[in-house]
Amino acid sequence: MICLGLVALQHRGQESAGIVTSLGKSSKNFSVHKGMGMINNLFNDEAIRKLKGNLGIGHTRYSTAAASEVVNCQPFVVHTAHGALAIAHNGELVNCESLRREVLERGVGLSTHSDSELIAQSLCCAPEDVSEHDGPNWPARIRHFMTLAPLSYSLVVMHKDKIYAVRDSYGNRPLCLGKIVPVDAGHANINDQLAEGWVVSSESCGFLSIGARYVREVEPGEIIELSRNGYRTVDIVERPDYKRMAFCIFEYVYFARSDSMFEGQMVYSARLQCGRQLARESPLDADLVSSVPESGTAAAHGYARESGLPFGEVLCKNRYVGRTFIQPSTRLRQLGVAKKFGALAQNVEGKRIVLVDDSIVRGNTIGPIIKLLRDAGATEVHIRIASPPLQYPCYMGINIPTREELIANKLNADQLADHVGADSLAYLSVEGLVKAVQMNKAHVNPLKAGYCTACLTGEYPGGLPEELSW
Amino acid sequence: MICLGLVALQHRGQESAGIVTSLGKSSKNFSVHKGMGMINNLFNDEAIRKLKGNLGIGHTRYSTAAASEVVNCQPFVVHTAHGALAIAHNGELVNCESLRREVLERGVGLSTHSDSELIAQSLCCAPEDVSEHDGPNWPARIRHFMTLAPLSYSLVVMHKDKIYAVRDSYGNRPLCLGKIVPVDAGHANINDQLAEGWVVSSESCGFLSIGARYVREVEPGEIIELSRNGYRTVDIVERPDYKRMAFCIFEYVYFARSDSMFEGQMVYSARLQCGRQLARESPLDADLVSSVPESGTAAAHGYARESGLPFGEVLCKNRYVGRTFIQPSTRLRQLGVAKKFGALAQNVEGKRIVLVDDSIVRGNTIGPIIKLLRDAGATEVHIRIASPPLQYPCYMGINIPTREELIANKLNADQLADHVGADSLAYLSVEGLVKAVQMNKAHVNPLKAGYCTACLTGEYPGGLPEELSW
Amino acid sequence: MICLGLVALQHRGQESAGIVTSLGKSSKNFSVHKGMGMINNLFNDEAIRKLKGNLGIGHTRYSTAAASEVVNCQPFVVHTAHGALAIAHNGELVNCESLRREVLERGVGLSTHSDSELIAQSLCCAPEDVSEHDGPNWPARIRHFMTLAPLSYSLVVMHKDKIYAVRDSYGNRPLCLGKIVPVDAGHANINDQLAEGWVVSSESCGFLSIGARYVREVEPGEIIELSRNGYRTVDIVERPDYKRMAFCIFEYVYFARSDSMFEGQMVYSARLQCGRQLARESPLDADLVSSVPESGTAAAHGYARESGLPFGEVLCKNRYVGRTFIQPSTRLRQLGVAKKFGALAQNVEGKRIVLVDDSIVRGNTIGPIIKLLRDAGATEVHIRIASPPLQYPCYMGINIPTREELIANKLNADQLADHVGADSLAYLSVEGLVKAVQMNKAHVNPLKAGYCTACLTGEYPGGLPEELSW
Amino acid sequence: MICLGLVALQHRGQESAGIVTSLGKSSKNFSVHKGMGMINNLFNDEAIRKLKGNLGIGHTRYSTAAASEVVNCQPFVVHTAHGALAIAHNGELVNCESLRREVLERGVGLSTHSDSELIAQSLCCAPEDVSEHDGPNWPARIRHFMTLAPLSYSLVVMHKDKIYAVRDSYGNRPLCLGKIVPVDAGHANINDQLAEGWVVSSESCGFLSIGARYVREVEPGEIIELSRNGYRTVDIVERPDYKRMAFCIFEYVYFARSDSMFEGQMVYSARLQCGRQLARESPLDADLVSSVPESGTAAAHGYARESGLPFGEVLCKNRYVGRTFIQPSTRLRQLGVAKKFGALAQNVEGKRIVLVDDSIVRGNTIGPIIKLLRDAGATEVHIRIASPPLQYPCYMGINIPTREELIANKLNADQLADHVGADSLAYLSVEGLVKAVQMNKAHVNPLKAGYCTACLTGEYPGGLPEELSW
Repeated sequence: MICLGLVALQHRGQESAGIVTSLGKSSKNFSVHKGMGMINNLFNDEAIRKLKGNLGIGHTRYSTAAASEVVNCQPFVVHTAHGALAIAHNGELVNCESLRREVLERGVGLSTHSDSELIAQSLCCAPEDVSEHDGPNWPARIRHFMTLAPLSYSLVVMHKDKIYAVRDSYGNRPLCLGKIVPVDAGHANINDQLAEGWVVSSESCGFLSIGARYVREVEPGEIIELSRNGYRTVDIVERPDYKRMAFCIFEYVYFARSDSMFEGQMVYSARLQCGRQLARESPLDADLVSSVPESGTAAAHGYARESGLPFGEVLCKNRYVGRTFIQPSTRLRQLGVAKKFGALAQNVEGKRIVLVDDSIVRGNTIGPIIKLLRDAGATEVHIRIASPPLQYPCYMGINIPTREELIANKLNADQLADHVGADSLAYLSVEGLVKAVQMNKAHVNPLKAGYCTACLTGEYPGGLPEELSW
Repeated sequence: MICLGLVALQHRGQESAGIVTSLGKSSKNFSVHKGMGMINNLFNDEAIRKLKGNLGIGHTRYSTAAASEVVNCQPFVVHTAHGALAIAHNGELVNCESLRREVLERGVGLSTHSDSELIAQSLCCAPEDVSEHDGPNWPARIRHFMTLAPLSYSLVVMHKDKIYAVRDSYGNRPLCLGKIVPVDAGHANINDQLAEGWVVSSESCGFLSIGARYVREVEPGEIIELSRNGYRTVDIVERPDYKRMAFCIFEYVYFARSDSMFEGQMVYSARLQCGRQLARESPLDADLVSSVPESGTAAAHGYARESGLPFGEVLCKNRYVGRTFIQPSTRLRQLGVAKKFGALAQNVEGKRIVLVDDSIVRGNTIGPIIKLLRDAGATEVHIRIASPPLQYPCYMGINIPTREELIANKLNADQLADHVGADSLAYLSVEGLVKAVQMNKAHVNPLKAGYCTACLTGEYPGGLPEELSW
Repeated sequence: MICLGLVALQHRGQESAGIVTSLGKSSKNFSVHKGMGMINNLFNDEAIRKLKGNLGIGHTRYSTAAASEVVNCQPFVVHTAHGALAIAHNGELVNCESLRREVLERGVGLSTHSDSELIAQSLCCAPEDVSEHDGPNWPARIRHFMTLAPLSYSLVVMHKDKIYAVRDSYGNRPLCLGKIVPVDAGHANINDQLAEGWVVSSESCGFLSIGARYVREVEPGEIIELSRNGYRTVDIVERPDYKRMAFCIFEYVYFARSDSMFEGQMVYSARLQCGRQLARESPLDADLVSSVPESGTAAAHGYARESGLPFGEVLCKNRYVGRTFIQPSTRLRQLGVAKKFGALAQNVEGKRIVLVDDSIVRGNTIGPIIKLLRDAGATEVHIRIASPPLQYPCYMGINIPTREELIANKLNADQLADHVGADSLAYLSVEGLVKAVQMNKAHVNPLKAGYCTACLTGEYPGGLPEELSW
Repeated sequence: MICLGLVALQHRGQESAGIVTSLGKSSKNFSVHKGMGMINNLFNDEAIRKLKGNLGIGHTRYSTAAASEVVNCQPFVVHTAHGALAIAHNGELVNCESLRREVLERGVGLSTHSDSELIAQSLCCAPEDVSEHDGPNWPARIRHFMTLAPLSYSLVVMHKDKIYAVRDSYGNRPLCLGKIVPVDAGHANINDQLAEGWVVSSESCGFLSIGARYVREVEPGEIIELSRNGYRTVDIVERPDYKRMAFCIFEYVYFARSDSMFEGQMVYSARLQCGRQLARESPLDADLVSSVPESGTAAAHGYARESGLPFGEVLCKNRYVGRTFIQPSTRLRQLGVAKKFGALAQNVEGKRIVLVDDSIVRGNTIGPIIKLLRDAGATEVHIRIASPPLQYPCYMGINIPTREELIANKLNADQLADHVGADSLAYLSVEGLVKAVQMNKAHVNPLKAGYCTACLTGEYPGGLPEELSW
């Protein structure tokens, strides 16, 4: 079940993955399987059979150049004086350097540069003001860590027969709670029956595939304990009064899977709203609205509905083109080679096309696509991007290229249109984006809008720690 | 360029691939690179650099259980008394057993069971009635082979500085001709410049990516010679008078890439017409037309347009689910697990849905999808299949499961609806399909309709050779 | 140079290996390359080029079932408050469980079960009685660790521009010091010139291959500091008064390479002496003395010289038989299959043979060899083993099978002769072995004999810690 | 059993291997397993289980740069008009080019450049003068091939339930016959019992390991048929009257395993005789005779016995050094690095050493070994080579480097001694070699000496075909 859940989260990280399960009572009874690569390859029947127990945690990890090593695979398991602890972490500690210094000065050696080891070593030692005559007080240790580390993290921490689910007080990274619903015993094989259960996950998109239903999000600062007795909130750590919630808006724009739910709404719906808002902000007279499959489809449908223009497909994707690929010679590149896509020529010929995409990062792919459509006979190609220009790095868990690589730091919209050969190019505004993701939430006070838009505006929640100033 | 072309043909075969190039004059100057796997992996920079010459042929091969061996990779290179010959073959020889017997009785050993070796050995020996005082007469040898082997094949045969492109007299397998257009020398790197050139391919979808334009199809029975002097028809081998052309209709339905052109029309358009025809044949009162991404999308748009119902997305695809995968337990299967897809719940809730797909083969995947949509709140789910029931094996190059595995041989439409949990299920009729693929061709005389529909009707063009009777 | 040295130590461990080098001043300038497998495969040109600096440590690791994981590859690198520390360890901590408990109770998490991590975390924290106002006092920290951990270890610890070489106070595991001799500048390429340098190693056999000369052994309890200024003894930790030195005698018998020097004598010579002693203890009337190549050759030569019998080869080794191999059927096993060896039939026919080997562990291989010799015509085959019966486990770094697997715990010499089909079988006595390894050392007082013979006698130096009692 | 036999022949080729077995009656019932690599890796349990039948042939193939491809793995299987034929070939066809031309002009295509395919296609076609009204006459076809191809080959040809064993009329390549002896049924598992059987092999060294006994060699020109009824000579093809037998003398010198039997004598004995003869031809005053392990050991023992000097070991081999290895810098090479060997210093110090090796090819390894011995204290090092200088290429199956690479074509014995730093260096004479290999054969008329010494003398048996003249 954890494995199926991770398959649904594979888009959040393809570098490595792992699962740790627990037999409960004894602290020695962890089963661990971790490795480099995709879930499908890592978790064959044999690997799954070896994972014993009735609770567990899993993780899929991002591909970042710096630390693509086996030793950094999560969940991170550490042996403590009270038995083994397993930790999985979504996010990035903004003040990791100062946290690191503290741990090292305590006389603890660190064998990796990963945040997970840092969190683990932080939890291994009971703070002075935490009394533990009855055994380890994990919630108190977690609270202590949270007061030292403002963001960004969604965490699961497993010890014996309990899992703690933790979200930082800014709510920067997503984390939601689901309920596993028992199936009708009439049909089920007796061995397969499952009592009621609970699950937490960065995204809800895997819930249906494991027979679970979305219940609610874990609140910013909340520490939830999952055990045989269900779930209960054991603590809520507040953020500073003058600070607003800072949920990563990039999850809506790009990162999350479109069937996930955040704040009670489907990501697909938010993207469709972005397309509608974009049509309002940058309308056009054209024959056809289309998208770069599959990233821009939701927004393109939104644009089409709002504008009243027909939606139609203009590109066909080559399913078999991987990431690493032969470099065509200059001559072939010049031909506007778009080996990833083919043009549906008879749909395009003589048409004025609005092509919608979700975002522009380095700006490398859109030029060849426009060339391809013109070669296939399009008379005009207008680009509409359903998010604002991406301009700033993220220190909270999203892997954004350097400022120099971000095309929006080099060219404005008109220059970019020119550069890629579009007849026009327009972005969604930051205000428009915030409005769009709140469109379906009547109850949200837009003045209190709680989103982290740092990659778009450079305004980091809680400010940037000194160690990160650039 | 050949490599990029093969990437665009990767959907036609993922088991193995190869390229042979020729330096022209000398018969010893073939460069060969072949192997198991996908183009991306086989053809790295080094492999490509080693392929020298200015003409060449390439091939991607199908995954069929029986002969997944390196020795069967194409193109097949054979050394003859007149130098090396390279052959690539799309199709399957229906009378291979009798051809084989003839070759063996001539005292020739065969080291594989592949059709390519058989074709090669047939061409190695000049037939008695072919006089060759001036050197080998390849067109005459090819004609001789064609008279012995009625179908099915599209062939390319390379010798020294010439390539022969051959299509069987029934036109069963596709083959088309394209022109490589020189680019503006002003911008091009001098090394990358390319004079005019010619290309033949099973599908036209790769043409744009290599700077070529679709010219026409190679005609049934035609032998085209490509050389430094351009192309010319050197012979046309007729089929028996009483026989009609028999172009594989399954190429339209399923096999070809949607941006390819056959008979002057785009495959996507033909599929959209199938959807329109389906709406006429099996209309419905519903809230939403959708498709199983991405196979049914063109037909779904056609259905929506014809029926006037709105089109909307209901499924989100997990890009990272490969073919080999963990087997969920019965319990999880029962939950209607569709790990490949997620439901866009807020689009589905309370809706009556028409779900369009291009074909049903074994019928394994549709059930879990329906279950997923119902779990997500759909009130009705109706299945519409944009092709007739698939019931018979193909002996002409398409890898269709055994009759026992084909669900249409076990259940009729109503039984199948029941079996997969649909509110209704309807197929397109054979007549409807033939009509749909001719819809855009005003010039085609429908009475002379020239399609092989053997997998749908059991009527094999030219009859079944004795050796294949079952 | 480190890499070549490790190649010469490959016999000490084939599971994994690693090298860490240091650029000296800055604590961040470690280069690390580790992995599973043999030196030849792990250290290609690229890997070696990346290892920068002018000091470094390396390790090859044993194949033990329990912990064959990448995470356990040595050297172990740990980040401390004073910069990175790299540690390589030969041996096994007999009281690791109590050391582990201490570290955990200090609030430190441990992520592996390896001794190396334990040693590293022990060194990370300055003990209370060590004052460090001028920076870390590594020798004092090492001494502190040594007082807690009696045996068994030879250690190298690298920090910035210094390496500490440490041998436990019992001298259980070997460690020796060598001097790198500058070569004649007249011939040397300028880039290749090397000033004088120093090296420590578990065995001296690699010294010649890196241009070094054997100087002396590191003394039991000695802490040597290697730096730009040469080497100096910074401390000597004493063992309890009533305890004798306990150098592993199994190094002489089996483990070390025959060209290594221990205690001023060549291992080959010690083995030859064992053969001589064996001839005295168990003489025979025979035609030929031979050995199982190549393990018993030195002892066989000794036996031949002492007995006056001729030495001759009787077996030919198949160089290409690896470890994992096809299991012959019972029938073939019965035939006395010895696929690893062939018999030199014409040397064997009609002869009475004394076959000498260095040791018997499980007793599986000798039977088929005897059968092979008899099939080839030998009239008598007598087995002489140049070491006493192996009966007890080792907790100090040698990977000996379980007591149940050791044939000497199941059969005495006569029973074993019967079991393997020998005409007679005799072991060397423990006294004889100790005498033989001291034969060349006039200066050694045999009454103070300082060897660990635990695997032969069950007498563990320092007694067995409670946690290991069985 | 075939697999075990191939393991014993692994030294004859490590590039690829294969086994084909036959179920007998039906020509379709061949099981084939072939691939690149060593027997141990290719033939796991599963592979062996799939090989069905009670007769079969196997092959291990040489690593030659030109043709290291899967397609060249042997045995070669070809389908003929009379069913499948499997062929394995030891040797090289000296007139392959003219044979090739004949086959091609018959209208047969060849897909490889291997001799095996050529032989196969030759056998596929019945020659005009062979009448086959009762089915294929394989012996006649084989005889026909043998009259066209003088040498060099030992062949096994399998068809249905028969195997033909063939040796060329010069007896150039070895081939011998063995009898599989039934074992005592009292002990054998019923399934493992084996009736009497027959085996042919290039060398006899594998016979003991499969329960077989050496019977005799296949005679030059002999065609033996093996079947359910045992073996029988079906034909003997004579060589030209004026030609002598030409058995490859290099098999004795270097290639064969020392426990194999040729012409009634053990290869080890022949090598020992070479050492004796060498001592007679090039005697010395020295302290110790030793060898480069393990290639020169037999000859060194011979030299020691003849000269009366003591034999002793001076080098210790590193078992773990593979072929591909890190390139030491010039500095390290200069140090006389011999990473493959260590010096047994205490055996060498102050000694005058005769170092015997079997042959010198490129002369790269002996220099560093001499340097190593001098570094270890040897006062003199004299090299004695138990074969004549290797100067000419072989076109009959032995992979000898080019003339330019052979050190004997650049330096004479004295120059070479100088070059490698030896005090003296001497080869065995050609006459001495021929005498030595006949020493034990009282019955052989030395005037009729039947050896191919082409690589030593440039005199090719039967002369060189024009196509090979250089």
